[in-house]
Amino acid sequence: VMSMPSIAADSPISKQQKETAQQLMETALKSDLAYDIVESLTTEIGPRLGGSEAEKRARDWGANLGKELGFDKVAIEEFTMPFWDRGHLHIALTSPYNQELYGSALGGAAPSEKEINAPIVYFRDIHALTAIKDGSLKGKVAFVDGEPMVKSQTGAGYGPSNQKRRIGWQHAQRGGASALVIRSVGSDSHRFPHTGMMSKKDDKWTTIPVIAISNPDADHLRRLHNLGKPLSISLHSGSDWQGEVTSGNVVLDIIGSEKPEEIVLIGGHLDSWDLGTGAVDDGAGIAITTAAAKLIANLPKRPKRTIRVVMFGAEEVGLLGAYAYAEKHEANLHNHVVATESDFGARNVWRLTSDVNPEATVLVDEIAKIIAPLGIIRGGSDVKGGGPDIIPMANKGVPTIRLQQEGTDYFDLHHTPDDTLDKIDPEELKQNVAAYAATIFLFADTHIDLKKKN
Amino acid sequence: VMSMPSIAADSPISKQQKETAQQLMETALKSDLAYDIVESLTTEIGPRLGGSEAEKRARDWGANLGKELGFDKVAIEEFTMPFWDRGHLHIALTSPYNQELYGSALGGAAPSEKEINAPIVYFRDIHALTAIKDGSLKGKVAFVDGEPMVKSQTGAGYGPSNQKRRIGWQHAQRGGASALVIRSVGSDSHRFPHTGMMSKKDDKWTTIPVIAISNPDADHLRRLHNLGKPLSISLHSGSDWQGEVTSGNVVLDIIGSEKPEEIVLIGGHLDSWDLGTGAVDDGAGIAITTAAAKLIANLPKRPKRTIRVVMFGAEEVGLLGAYAYAEKHEANLHNHVVATESDFGARNVWRLTSDVNPEATVLVDEIAKIIAPLGIIRGGSDVKGGGPDIIPMANKGVPTIRLQQEGTDYFDLHHTPDDTLDKIDPEELKQNVAAYAATIFLFADTHIDLKKKN
Ligand SMILES: [Zn+2]
Ligand SMILES: [Zn+2]
Ligand SMILES: [Zn+2]
Ligand SMILES: [Zn+2]
Repeated sequence: VMSMPSIAADSPISKQQKETAQQLMETALKSDLAYDIVESLTTEIGPRLGGSEAEKRARDWGANLGKELGFDKVAIEEFTMPFWDRGHLHIALTSPYNQELYGSALGGAAPSEKEINAPIVYFRDIHALTAIKDGSLKGKVAFVDGEPMVKSQTGAGYGPSNQKRRIGWQHAQRGGASALVIRSVGSDSHRFPHTGMMSKKDDKWTTIPVIAISNPDADHLRRLHNLGKPLSISLHSGSDWQGEVTSGNVVLDIIGSEKPEEIVLIGGHLDSWDLGTGAVDDGAGIAITTAAAKLIANLPKRPKRTIRVVMFGAEEVGLLGAYAYAEKHEANLHNHVVATESDFGARNVWRLTSDVNPEATVLVDEIAKIIAPLGIIRGGSDVKGGGPDIIPMANKGVPTIRLQQEGTDYFDLHHTPDDTLDKIDPEELKQNVAAYAATIFLFADTHIDLKKKN
Repeated sequence: VMSMPSIAADSPISKQQKETAQQLMETALKSDLAYDIVESLTTEIGPRLGGSEAEKRARDWGANLGKELGFDKVAIEEFTMPFWDRGHLHIALTSPYNQELYGSALGGAAPSEKEINAPIVYFRDIHALTAIKDGSLKGKVAFVDGEPMVKSQTGAGYGPSNQKRRIGWQHAQRGGASALVIRSVGSDSHRFPHTGMMSKKDDKWTTIPVIAISNPDADHLRRLHNLGKPLSISLHSGSDWQGEVTSGNVVLDIIGSEKPEEIVLIGGHLDSWDLGTGAVDDGAGIAITTAAAKLIANLPKRPKRTIRVVMFGAEEVGLLGAYAYAEKHEANLHNHVVATESDFGARNVWRLTSDVNPEATVLVDEIAKIIAPLGIIRGGSDVKGGGPDIIPMANKGVPTIRLQQEGTDYFDLHHTPDDTLDKIDPEELKQNVAAYAATIFLFADTHIDLKKKN
């Protein structure tokens, strides 16, 4: 602290850089490019589960887009991965009467060999399930209730709500249950279950079917349980692992004019869950970051550093593209000067956080002042995490920032069939592009070192 | 007009009647009874399609409820009807790529003998379809687009939007199409299609599968069509007619103290579509009217006229309970002094309309003044229609009134899987009961003749 130079008085951003950033924002707020990109991706490709044929079509789409937009370098970097497919599911209440339930298999769930017909054992929450004795659920289906996810601007409710999806199976399986059914992790009150991957334990996936049912269906089961009605269920699921397939990342570069080897990395993930068309998760992120880079490429001169847009593959199924990227580029990660991902929907950016060299924090502070007219405040300078696909490189020392999006309603749509294009407000998308274009330009056009010294 | 007595100066409502009505409103605004009723119906019975085993359980539930609440007379009036069941549906886009669509068979649709795989012919709206030449759609599936239903407080957008559901099949079938797919009639933007009955033509139902797809799915098809992509579809539907079954109406009476033969009829319909649990359509109507009658029954003295709550069966599939009631009670309809139904959701009542003897209109005006503190205005005195199940008796001269509910968002839920208990605001339900209890008490405790003279 004592040795910190007094650079706060002299802005690390020149008058011309500031004006360029402001022009980028103005242009972005009038540009339909991001909306056109997310419309094209969701319409022409549709749902694109990691490792699927559709995700392959998305990679070709992404590479073509990069060429059409005039990126300096376009590459597809393939990797292999195990493929899980949800197959067909039928789930219905059979006692106290017959009623179809709205459910979805969770990622990694095993199939039922044949139809399961069993009584339900009701657990008020995940804690009640984790407390069971081994073998106490034989011949039963466990149902874990809980509350609809608590809404919050930052998505803080997701982690706690997600516990039952992540680890519930371990306890149901330990109890000997034939299957696990959980209340949907989402915050919505529609008849859609929220899907997503479960966690492995000791590097193994579950051996039982695990199904999420919608919040209204879970409410229904709770009320019947509270009335003392004996509940039973019929369940037949075809979800299973299908062997090794190919996925990949699409890498688009705007080559820097002075320090081409130094990389400012932005992006989103190209894959989506299969239920919706992946508009807010994460077509929006692909569109915002690609459009922002294109607007910078339209400037008369390339910024000093290279701007790299990565369209990550297979994020939803375990950040597989992110790990593949960090591994492939490991020797060059020291040249990744800052990284961030747009993967939290399509609502306005409201806060800029960072985790960079303390001596470079002033640069982020100054950038925050420039984008403040977009309705963005400066958040913490010690906030880890540039987005899910940034984790593997952040773990290896790459500095990160985040343009945080308004996420209060994100989990109404996230990982449900309702994640479709109509949910995106074109004006809010423009605000995102404006924030990215200005911010990324300023990081790319500086010489300031963002890396932490340790 | 010249002979109209000057009763406007002297209110037709006594001070004591007014006070009783006000007490009823106060009590209703504190009572959970209606919510308890709709919670019980949706939870303990669940979805209850007209003619199904579940609707039979609902009738027994309704009769038991009437006895428990101390109605003076409880009856189940059975009738027979043809039963249509939606069976299993699979519908997916197969060109330009494979993507599951979210669809539901429309009521009365025929099954596909085997899987249909055919190109789609796109029609921008129902008018484009009605203009086709006979035989011009052979080997094709017709898709009728349109707009999401226009929202309106009164539901005025439903009729126009509904045309494609009602009569679309006649033109698709005339064209020789293998099936008809339509944009959902609802106003929501969720991945739920809106179901409902089609119309017969020359007393015959369609011979082809007819499927509604959700608004976001229809948007998707429109965008692909606009891009010039050739669309094709795979479709397999098991929906079919299943022969003659039994349905019925439940009739609950609070017998009048002075004119027991004169009937003030209120009610709702007991059946629901099978996709949701029929909370807003029409568990709410059953709950509101039953609770209102019960609050009146709790008074120290029965009102002069009989109050009858009818829980109509099989409304959704063609007002079958309503026609059965009007036929069975035909000889006594002259004693039905006024009739109304609650069947427009569970939001607040905002307007009172009527269609009664002009000389009795002043009574409705005075009632409107008493319920005005609930946020209700007086609407037209020449507005026909006391609700769908009232149509057959209104056609035979029974006077009607309507306590109109706020319906702007009703068609977001109506006839979709999303029609579940969580969508009901208990406070708004209480306002409905207050309006019904006061209004119905005042109609039942007067001697004024409401019948039109012709
Ligand atoms: Zn994501
Ligand atoms: Zn996701
Ligand atoms: Zn209805
Ligand atoms: Zn209805």
